[in-house]
Amino acid sequence: MADYEVLKTINSPKDVKDLSFMALNELCEEMRSAVLNRVSRIGGHVGPNLGVIELTVALHYVFNSPVDKMVWDVSHQSYPHKMLTGRAAGFYDETKFSEISGYTAPQESEHDIFTVGHTSTSVSLAAGLAKARDFKGEKHNVIAIIGDGSLSGGEAFEGLDNAGDFKSNFIVIVNDNEMSIAENYGGLYGNLSKLRETKGAAQDNYFKALGFDYRYVEEGNDVVKLITELMKVKDIDHPVVVHIHTLKGNGYRPAEENKEAFHWSLPFDVESGKLLPFNGGESYGSIVADYLENRVRQDKSLAVVNAGTPGAVCMRDFRSRHPDNFFDVGIAEEHLIAFISGMAKSGLKPVGLFFGGFIQRTYDQLSQDLCLNKSPAVIVLENCGITGMDVTHLSIFDIAMISSIPNLVGLAPSCKSEAIRMLDWAFAQKDFPVVIRTPADISQNLIYEPKQDIELNKFEMLKKGSKVALLGLGNFLKLAEDTAELLKEKGIEATIINPRFTTALDEDMLSSLVENHNIVVTLEDGVLAGGFGEKVAAFYGDKPVKVYNFGAYKEFTDRVPVAELLERYELTPAQIVRKIM
Amino acid sequence: MADYEVLKTINSPKDVKDLSFMALNELCEEMRSAVLNRVSRIGGHVGPNLGVIELTVALHYVFNSPVDKMVWDVSHQSYPHKMLTGRAAGFYDETKFSEISGYTAPQESEHDIFTVGHTSTSVSLAAGLAKARDFKGEKHNVIAIIGDGSLSGGEAFEGLDNAGDFKSNFIVIVNDNEMSIAENYGGLYGNLSKLRETKGAAQDNYFKALGFDYRYVEEGNDVVKLITELMKVKDIDHPVVVHIHTLKGNGYRPAEENKEAFHWSLPFDVESGKLLPFNGGESYGSIVADYLENRVRQDKSLAVVNAGTPGAVCMRDFRSRHPDNFFDVGIAEEHLIAFISGMAKSGLKPVGLFFGGFIQRTYDQLSQDLCLNKSPAVIVLENCGITGMDVTHLSIFDIAMISSIPNLVGLAPSCKSEAIRMLDWAFAQKDFPVVIRTPADISQNLIYEPKQDIELNKFEMLKKGSKVALLGLGNFLKLAEDTAELLKEKGIEATIINPRFTTALDEDMLSSLVENHNIVVTLEDGVLAGGFGEKVAAFYGDKPVKVYNFGAYKEFTDRVPVAELLERYELTPAQIVRKIM
Repeated sequence: MADYEVLKTINSPKDVKDLSFMALNELCEEMRSAVLNRVSRIGGHVGPNLGVIELTVALHYVFNSPVDKMVWDVSHQSYPHKMLTGRAAGFYDETKFSEISGYTAPQESEHDIFTVGHTSTSVSLAAGLAKARDFKGEKHNVIAIIGDGSLSGGEAFEGLDNAGDFKSNFIVIVNDNEMSIAENYGGLYGNLSKLRETKGAAQDNYFKALGFDYRYVEEGNDVVKLITELMKVKDIDHPVVVHIHTLKGNGYRPAEENKEAFHWSLPFDVESGKLLPFNGGESYGSIVADYLENRVRQDKSLAVVNAGTPGAVCMRDFRSRHPDNFFDVGIAEEHLIAFISGMAKSGLKPVGLFFGGFIQRTYDQLSQDLCLNKSPAVIVLENCGITGMDVTHLSIFDIAMISSIPNLVGLAPSCKSEAIRMLDWAFAQKDFPVVIRTPADISQNLIYEPKQDIELNKFEMLKKGSKVALLGLGNFLKLAEDTAELLKEKGIEATIINPRFTTALDEDMLSSLVENHNIVVTLEDGVLAGGFGEKVAAFYGDKPVKVYNFGAYKEFTDRVPVAELLERYELTPAQIVRKIM
Repeated sequence: MADYEVLKTINSPKDVKDLSFMALNELCEEMRSAVLNRVSRIGGHVGPNLGVIELTVALHYVFNSPVDKMVWDVSHQSYPHKMLTGRAAGFYDETKFSEISGYTAPQESEHDIFTVGHTSTSVSLAAGLAKARDFKGEKHNVIAIIGDGSLSGGEAFEGLDNAGDFKSNFIVIVNDNEMSIAENYGGLYGNLSKLRETKGAAQDNYFKALGFDYRYVEEGNDVVKLITELMKVKDIDHPVVVHIHTLKGNGYRPAEENKEAFHWSLPFDVESGKLLPFNGGESYGSIVADYLENRVRQDKSLAVVNAGTPGAVCMRDFRSRHPDNFFDVGIAEEHLIAFISGMAKSGLKPVGLFFGGFIQRTYDQLSQDLCLNKSPAVIVLENCGITGMDVTHLSIFDIAMISSIPNLVGLAPSCKSEAIRMLDWAFAQKDFPVVIRTPADISQNLIYEPKQDIELNKFEMLKKGSKVALLGLGNFLKLAEDTAELLKEKGIEATIINPRFTTALDEDMLSSLVENHNIVVTLEDGVLAGGFGEKVAAFYGDKPVKVYNFGAYKEFTDRVPVAELLERYELTPAQIVRKIM
């Protein structure tokens, strides 16, 4: 099996169509093995991919990609699809792992139509393809494949609602493995459960309510059965949902038994299912988790709210210890913001936890539901800054995005103790919604005890020097310190400032710098366009001070190592010194 | 009736409870008259308010606001609620019209919990109130009142999905008048239609599918019937949807007969229902509409897409003339962006039309669905800039919001002919998604023929001067010209530049200014924080040029006249000259 005999014969979907049913089953086993081969060594999405191997084989057996268009929601379950579309070596051959991303990527293959990594978008994207097809008088199938977990996102509903009205071919495959990233929450999941129990016959069918024809397939990991059922909807002339019951982690016992842990995993031992040793240790996630653990012991009304990613924000323990204080609203970030606004309006002090850049799903809710109403909720962003992650999972846009929203206070801690002070400050005040962005990499953090209390929109001056002032925002205070060291060698005693606040300037302090500084440098762990540094530059626009902004360029980068990005953005002390000298 | 005998006795909801059923009906008639009194003179939402008078009276009769909490979705139907909560004079007394806004406003009354003006938020906001109530061991009712049109928004679905799982009191009133702002689109509306036809008995009930108990009330404009039905759900111990069939515009024939025109209306003659004469004439909406009309005659594959506001973007005529080329996806802005991305990916050239600031509902979709995929769709924003509108309808944040999104090209025309050139350019190119923001006020626009062709990220220099360079973005090119006139009186021949692009700088041109300019002034019709001017300031950070940014402050303003805002933001030529001299 580990020879990948069948898999190695598959260079494109048409090779799948030539296989006997027996060979198809063999292919599935080899694909399972290849998924495990990759994810056990370099990490990745385990359960979602193991669950859809048979479904993917059946889809490519029945449909004719790329003429027929498949759109994979969130696309972290597209590994099997990649294997059948010329990219199998990226799974069985360790030397080719890095050639393949973990999401659909048009630059890899004509079978990947969109770059996708956020949930709940597939139906809308596919709806556009279907309408364009009709416009052009073409005749192919358009298929959106969406997991049950992604159905809780508003965009998925909007897409279904619109497409439910279509009068032509439109196929939605609902891959129901009874799980989101974590457990599913929300009334819809009661409906899916009833549909499973009744083999699709339950009353009050969500999909039918939105205008779709509907079919249920219980045997979602039986490739022959799937082929039979998919044949029935091929070339259908109206919108249909095929609700397929699959087993997340199918065929790999550790993943079947611990679905949440094996949704996405770091490298692990395939035999035992145990994680390989790695430098885990403390993270801002764990710091925030510890903080909330302490807090809930004193305040039984603490409400911690998350949108479907409790593991990613280190909340699994908290969830099990304090079920009454933990609210998982499902993958529904917009709702989360309005929900905590309502809680805060009632006098509670809710905290919303986001992983990385996903706050960007809520601009309008931050603006209207939260900030216009000045609801003093706390929001913590984790894993922010230049991370080198997948192109869909960049976390560099948040500072710029929130910077134009009135009433919102943004904070960026430079170290653990400051993060705790900021949390204290945010919970204590009652005037503003607060966003605290914590960085991905704690190792870059300097170890210092902030002397000055947190005070609204006041920066902290760590070292008073002259000529050059370095403003190191959040995680980049360390970079300011390192740069100051280098400047010292050049005979310059630079001023070092910890701005703390991302959303406003300490104009008194900035004004005071004019007297004995001619260069002000801003360092931010985020995109320059619309960010913090530009505000500093604008402040000094009419003053005799030169300003240099350092930060990320406005670009989408895909799995570029952090060190390479820092070099590209001139974010090393040597480059910074070179530029300002 | 026009004496408002009963209405004048209502100072708070408890006064409603003392009325006989006969007096309640009289009250409804007086309220209808008061709505018409206001909206016919100063404009406003007509049909939505006329339709819910009986419902509002019944709600305040049965429930006990503000102990029981009512959250009005979008809240443009809250006029009757305002009348019953101490603000009736704002409707029957012309001298008090301006004291009352057209949306719920906590600063006006304790009965208004949130400031709301965007659709589809009520259920989520109310869900937060309900969970907070349970947390605090309180016992009141929480009621979200949402129109059928708002149900198409993803946030409403996310809220319903979450709340459908609640184990305590939660009441959603669905005010079904068979209309959104325009006609409803989407599969869900087929379901609502079946529910109406069957008096709530249809299979595949959308609300039941999400976990709600459900009740149907056909007589949605019968106050006694409504009281009877609402009594049945008062203090209910689980989530329930009360689906109420109302008549939009009820009791005023012109509004009943022309529901779309009377959703929101400028001042009109009550007797005839005819609009009063006003300075309508040409607008950027009509310019874009004419452009698309010309375009569709040559290109039968033109797809114009809008999210539920065809009237606001001047598309009613286009819609009726070219039904195959017009797609109203319902109030579902997120879906709209993904939908046009799918269309563009298939080789079509779709154009999405947004009114004012509502593009802000789509940050993540712009980033992920559209720009990450470089789908060359065109988006036109209408009615942008400093407008003096309601606090929920400000249109000053778009330039800042999109400025951090890679691959997106933003354009701001300074006049009609330039708008048309920009549309031509956007349709002709195939490399980028393009956002064209057109201003609210065409009268402020200068009448000039741009000489230079549109070229990616190239500014246009209109006049070459020295010492001072004025960059007037979009609508504010006129302000740059006026300021230059004033500077001329002071002996300065200023350079005038039309930047055209909001999302990138013409670095060659900016660099060339250094030689013989010592002041660069940016003028933008939007918020400064994160906007265009800050980018210019950052560019000149290390150069011997002073930069002054002029634009709107980061604040929520509520119905402040444009002239007052321009004065406040120092956006008059005299103020600008004073500051830079």
